[in-house]
Amino acid sequence: MSRKITHFETHDVRFPTSLSGDGTDAMNTECDYSSAYVSIYTDGESPFVGHGMTFTIGRGNEIVCQAIASLANRLIGKDPEELFKSMGKTWDWMCSDPQLRWIGPEKGVIHIAAGAVNNALWDMFARARGKPLWKLVVDMTPEELVDAAAFRYITDAITREEALAMLKAKEAGKKEREATVKELGYPAYVTSAGWLGYSDEKVARLTKEAVAAGFNHFKMKVGADVASDLRRGLIIRSIIDDPQYLPPGSKGRDPNSPELKGKNAGPTGAVLMIDANQVWDVPQAIEYVKSLEAIKPWFIEEPTAPDDILGHAAIRKALKPHGIGVATGEHAHNRMVFKQLLQAEAIDVCQIDSCRLAGVSEVLSVLLMAAKFNIPVCPHAGGVGLCEYVIHLSLIDYIAVSGTMERNVLEFVDHLHEHFLYPCSINSKGRYNVPSNSAEGYSIEMHKQSIAEYEWPNGSYWVSAKGSK
Amino acid sequence: MSRKITHFETHDVRFPTSLSGDGTDAMNTECDYSSAYVSIYTDGESPFVGHGMTFTIGRGNEIVCQAIASLANRLIGKDPEELFKSMGKTWDWMCSDPQLRWIGPEKGVIHIAAGAVNNALWDMFARARGKPLWKLVVDMTPEELVDAAAFRYITDAITREEALAMLKAKEAGKKEREATVKELGYPAYVTSAGWLGYSDEKVARLTKEAVAAGFNHFKMKVGADVASDLRRGLIIRSIIDDPQYLPPGSKGRDPNSPELKGKNAGPTGAVLMIDANQVWDVPQAIEYVKSLEAIKPWFIEEPTAPDDILGHAAIRKALKPHGIGVATGEHAHNRMVFKQLLQAEAIDVCQIDSCRLAGVSEVLSVLLMAAKFNIPVCPHAGGVGLCEYVIHLSLIDYIAVSGTMERNVLEFVDHLHEHFLYPCSINSKGRYNVPSNSAEGYSIEMHKQSIAEYEWPNGSYWVSAKGSK
Repeated sequence: MSRKITHFETHDVRFPTSLSGDGTDAMNTECDYSSAYVSIYTDGESPFVGHGMTFTIGRGNEIVCQAIASLANRLIGKDPEELFKSMGKTWDWMCSDPQLRWIGPEKGVIHIAAGAVNNALWDMFARARGKPLWKLVVDMTPEELVDAAAFRYITDAITREEALAMLKAKEAGKKEREATVKELGYPAYVTSAGWLGYSDEKVARLTKEAVAAGFNHFKMKVGADVASDLRRGLIIRSIIDDPQYLPPGSKGRDPNSPELKGKNAGPTGAVLMIDANQVWDVPQAIEYVKSLEAIKPWFIEEPTAPDDILGHAAIRKALKPHGIGVATGEHAHNRMVFKQLLQAEAIDVCQIDSCRLAGVSEVLSVLLMAAKFNIPVCPHAGGVGLCEYVIHLSLIDYIAVSGTMERNVLEFVDHLHEHFLYPCSINSKGRYNVPSNSAEGYSIEMHKQSIAEYEWPNGSYWVSAKGSK
Repeated sequence: MSRKITHFETHDVRFPTSLSGDGTDAMNTECDYSSAYVSIYTDGESPFVGHGMTFTIGRGNEIVCQAIASLANRLIGKDPEELFKSMGKTWDWMCSDPQLRWIGPEKGVIHIAAGAVNNALWDMFARARGKPLWKLVVDMTPEELVDAAAFRYITDAITREEALAMLKAKEAGKKEREATVKELGYPAYVTSAGWLGYSDEKVARLTKEAVAAGFNHFKMKVGADVASDLRRGLIIRSIIDDPQYLPPGSKGRDPNSPELKGKNAGPTGAVLMIDANQVWDVPQAIEYVKSLEAIKPWFIEEPTAPDDILGHAAIRKALKPHGIGVATGEHAHNRMVFKQLLQAEAIDVCQIDSCRLAGVSEVLSVLLMAAKFNIPVCPHAGGVGLCEYVIHLSLIDYIAVSGTMERNVLEFVDHLHEHFLYPCSINSKGRYNVPSNSAEGYSIEMHKQSIAEYEWPNGSYWVSAKGSK
């Protein structure tokens, strides 16, 4: 029985997080966590459906939705099983409309829109096979996984043959790693305590809660004011390094253990990361971060413009003697940027984003390169729906690609999970549970009620918000 | 008398160049040269107006127009004289809506849309002063010019102080250079002979016409088929190197003269460039271009992905022993990319695009960096309206920034100039005339009739084209 894709819907969904200061940092002073959401449908007696999204922070979400429509339109009439046969080929085709390519290419609005569509196709694929997305991919043979990735423009860093060899070498251990992570959960870190818009009291309170919840990696925003950053960082450091706040029965972790080595872990094994959201030029980044040495961060995230590969390399080189690393990726706009970050030895940590890259197919390419260059992948997830997405990607990385987990902490933010049918969840040890519902696909399906309420500008929330101004 | 910006219009204008094969190359197999066009108006007894555009090749132009509207909306109510006071500050402000920034940042749809708006503001500024855009800028003091540029994220390559010093050193010679270029015109090269979609006969005919018109730099498209490229290249080479095709009275130029040194000029001083429009990965680029050595190109343009700074550097290094250079820039999406191309010594020639960068303010930043790194700027102009734009930019570069002209050939394509009130023009020596109408501003104002005819989808051309399918 052959199906055809018959129609799709896009939804511009915006959550008013700017009211609470959630998500604020030195650059993004006013964020409404938003989803440019697409649902793709087939015909047939048992029709397929796929939901996907990309993430924005409010204005401009409508532009992205329009771009999604232009791309999704090309799918009308296609047989999804033909698309599933080689998701890499499907990805190449999706990104190569010669006219739409020009307004990227492979960057900005048109590329994140392609991500939403690619994510929706992967969701459809996983649901069609009755598996969560991560399971669909880890069950692939090395050949199938290589065929699902995007290799154009990166073959000077990794060829299909090299990727194949890497994956084959990891085959034997997949089953055991799958069992391990199901049992333990996937290690997470929180950013929710450290948004720039929070008061000191709120930061202290949330940090204590995070420690009590079992987290041992913590991220704070910096870049608005040195004195303020130092003060807040020392507040956080004083709490996370203090055994009195640990969960009952916990003794923390050994800072000298292999998974904590090089992370400036405190006496209880707590790790702090700082994030500047691109506010500095290269020279300022170096000076400012050096002045925060006392809070002993593992790395500075996004010290400068996301395009600036050589800039990140220069910052990394300058900070190495100070024991502070460099991380970036949430705005690294395609696999070619990650390729160069790795080639230039510009990063200690590779922070892929499930929605900035153009979907699972492009993420796979970056996981493969990061594994080859031996750089841990710690996905970005500060947003709506991103946590739901990235747990799948980290599972794919651990089980099938890199085989490492304990150093590869995955961001967790405690916002807006209630809007999803299959929300992610954290266990009592501060680790992500493994998505296990055979119906959940790529876990992004949003409640119809949430869409009805927060769709912009005509959802019930926005209509009444406008009325009350 | 203080004015306020009161309204704007956007127009999605598309010219059906795909019908004639104009503009075709190995990547862009089907181009409709299009303009995402914006007009901005003030109130007042003598109201100001500014027209601007960015360039696309068809589908997606509507997405860009929507983004332009989001940005232009922010101008409503602003006093243009306040904006003109520091066009650099205006540019920073335009690019920093914290929510719109996310869907770039500073790349793709939102950035080229910002370019259209910035170009319109510069057009308004120049018209308000009764000068063509180039003259407005070259008449600025060094301080004013520095203040008009975008310096964020590039200060590790050039500081405001360095830029100031560079411009001051060039001050004394400005008047003479202005007189020189008015007399001689600005050197141009043609691409119109070498589009991939043309037959051999058409290529030969157009090349002879170009030689007869006085051009001595020629560009051809490559990348679809090695044998075909070699054949076509040798056809072009045989014509441009043959004195019989020169204009009456011309003896060609000395290939050993300073302005032709290192360009693989033939016996009549003719130079050939090849352009691959990003079709190769790095290893293929190197092999393919080496196999075209017989046609003796000056450089290979866009051998690989525009994001791949390190890739271009690797290609350049590999081709140096073969005497072939590397050029790129028409898809270099912001000044940070150019910064790195220069820092990595990845290019012999810097090919800025008036519409890919976010307007004149960002172009100024790149001109300054290129001058500091001593790399000649040869703007891209294969499109509609781009020639009208880039002559201004090359004049600013020559008169105020780099002081060099003869090596810095400016692309010319002979398409669609009839749609502009102030079309660019070429003199009998194949050189651009200097725009000199006090009313023309940035020379992009389009005839209302052309807009009415080619606006998509409801212009008269597109309505009847649809009807005849």
